[in-house]
Amino acid sequence: MHDAAAAIALLEGASAAAADVFRAILTRGPISRIDIARLLGLSQAAVTKAVGPLLEVGLVSDELSLPRDGQPGRPANPLMVVADALVSIGVKVNADEIVGVATDLTTSVLAVDRRPLKTTSVSSVADAIEACTATLVDALGPLAPRLCAVGVSVSGDVDTHRGVVRESAIMGWTDVPLATILTDRLGRDVLVENDVRALTVGEHWFGVGVGTDLFAIVTIGRGIGSGLHINGDVVEGAYGVAGEIGHLPLTSPEHLCPCGRRGCVEAVAATPAIVAAVSRGHGHDLTIGEIVELAHERDPIAVHTFEHAATVIGTAIATLVNLTGPQLVIIGGEAVSNFDLFETHLRAAFEEHAFGAAGRCEIVTRPHTFEDWARGAAASAIRRLAEKGA
Amino acid sequence: MHDAAAAIALLEGASAAAADVFRAILTRGPISRIDIARLLGLSQAAVTKAVGPLLEVGLVSDELSLPRDGQPGRPANPLMVVADALVSIGVKVNADEIVGVATDLTTSVLAVDRRPLKTTSVSSVADAIEACTATLVDALGPLAPRLCAVGVSVSGDVDTHRGVVRESAIMGWTDVPLATILTDRLGRDVLVENDVRALTVGEHWFGVGVGTDLFAIVTIGRGIGSGLHINGDVVEGAYGVAGEIGHLPLTSPEHLCPCGRRGCVEAVAATPAIVAAVSRGHGHDLTIGEIVELAHERDPIAVHTFEHAATVIGTAIATLVNLTGPQLVIIGGEAVSNFDLFETHLRAAFEEHAFGAAGRCEIVTRPHTFEDWARGAAASAIRRLAEKGA
Repeated sequence: MHDAAAAIALLEGASAAAADVFRAILTRGPISRIDIARLLGLSQAAVTKAVGPLLEVGLVSDELSLPRDGQPGRPANPLMVVADALVSIGVKVNADEIVGVATDLTTSVLAVDRRPLKTTSVSSVADAIEACTATLVDALGPLAPRLCAVGVSVSGDVDTHRGVVRESAIMGWTDVPLATILTDRLGRDVLVENDVRALTVGEHWFGVGVGTDLFAIVTIGRGIGSGLHINGDVVEGAYGVAGEIGHLPLTSPEHLCPCGRRGCVEAVAATPAIVAAVSRGHGHDLTIGEIVELAHERDPIAVHTFEHAATVIGTAIATLVNLTGPQLVIIGGEAVSNFDLFETHLRAAFEEHAFGAAGRCEIVTRPHTFEDWARGAAASAIRRLAEKGA
Repeated sequence: MHDAAAAIALLEGASAAAADVFRAILTRGPISRIDIARLLGLSQAAVTKAVGPLLEVGLVSDELSLPRDGQPGRPANPLMVVADALVSIGVKVNADEIVGVATDLTTSVLAVDRRPLKTTSVSSVADAIEACTATLVDALGPLAPRLCAVGVSVSGDVDTHRGVVRESAIMGWTDVPLATILTDRLGRDVLVENDVRALTVGEHWFGVGVGTDLFAIVTIGRGIGSGLHINGDVVEGAYGVAGEIGHLPLTSPEHLCPCGRRGCVEAVAATPAIVAAVSRGHGHDLTIGEIVELAHERDPIAVHTFEHAATVIGTAIATLVNLTGPQLVIIGGEAVSNFDLFETHLRAAFEEHAFGAAGRCEIVTRPHTFEDWARGAAASAIRRLAEKGA
């Protein structure tokens, strides 16, 4: 028995406590009512009250449960989300391509659509997202009416509450009201989020961050960013900006960053900076692929450039760790595929500058695919729905 | 009607929801039951259930309330904590002095005791804290039986859960089990906390941080530290270390920090580093008082040293802000009394490196007295009690 419209209405109108209960089942299920009560500091009666309507609309199931002897109405067995009760679409916007996924509530991917971008103009990106969404809705077939949320993630300074991309260097955008534009085109609410924050939400739900409250994602590649998860939530920043590890002033002022500031991490450690430095050293333009090959052949200029980048990234991670003390730092981003060129100097710089017990923080890599980034956008959109409260 | 023992037992045995309700009344009162329910996502029935015993033992009052027409049992008027229902002692340990305060539940100071330290040996500090506590208990007179919590704050790497000062450069301590030592001596639980984190808790309760969820305290002076308040709580760090802004690698490696690392903020911007640099420049030992005077007389060496320190501190604050995006940074610590020597270069460096909308973060100073630091220790101890849950 299933009613998607009723399920969406229920989530949109949920009390804060009911929304908390749903999120607990979504992200920690299978979980018993008793454990939810303990986790959220609610009475069991309050949990039971919140669970009832979730069961009724088919968002949650206790089918695994067996009635206790003599208490047929009070199953003690765990609650789980019904993964395909609702579906979500997440889109990651890159400079040259958009990647969209349709997922179920647990962000398992049901369909994928990728399409190249010829330009980064707002209208062509909006065209592409509109077409991508239509394709994904088609692919969903009979599940299409269960679509509950659309999330779009973009690199840069994103004001999620207003849905405005205030600044995206990679896209060349300033103050683009992307949520409004897309909501008009798609005829439904669209969440716009910073891409690394979205990935952090996703990682907390489906990735290495599961079960860890205090962790960070650091992405390396064309841009260098980070997402922080502290005290139960992603750090959004009071003004919508946080995690800007790529713009920490950790290198010398001679390095000018594309953002206009001096000494930023990105000015030496982002892929364009590496490409520029090695091309300059060799006296002609090289691609990042050629530079990676040169480094693997021990070309001194390429090797030194990666080592310098790695030292600055490791120093930046130590900085993040000394300030926020995470249990785990997950390094992702496209440059992770060549992590061998970074690892030694990155870890050495981290160990040199990490302070005291903060240095126990584990550093792992995780090769996020572009689909993972899109899943993060879908997770952010579901999270927003499950957080709205009444 | 008042029963301190029952009140303490109630808090120690409280459910998580009841503890949340008490904390909401303590830190946000006067507050209505409806607003508490809204804030915490609880039903009004759950709030009423939690409030009952708090009223009964005299921790909370609704004396301001008038019965609604026809509903004499359901006052809508606000709840407030009964400030002197319980009292707390907070002690700040400095290298040359300890400062203790006895406070009520709202950390209003009821009595103060300061005593100089001849050495920083653990036993002489424990002696001093024991004597200080005894003096404060005497000063409390008839309120003494209401003592519910003792908190002690120390600069350095403090493992609050185990009560161990793992490393305190200022005290010259390594792995000191201070909580156990003091609990044995005082015959009651003692909370040991990092001093800046304790101040951050206090500031959130009684200071500029009231009503602001995302803020940071940065302390400048003999040490340089910070406390972060994000997503509803102080950032503790997964391994008990966070906020180590004094040990961010933001200056050149030629500067050796007393911690053994190179390029730390403290290596150029802490008072001992300033004293060393100006003394070296003048070829003889100077005190910080003499150096401040020299700077005010525009002595170029002193002026330049303060400007350099200020630039590094401003860069460090930009780093903290770019990563965590606070609404407010409160600069405290003993060097704030000479903030005129720092301000221009500090703000210029902050503006140079703050990224995008994160730069809207306001920077204010607040001259914390040592009593404020001790109040922070008292607030941390009360917070722990009100968080224990069952």
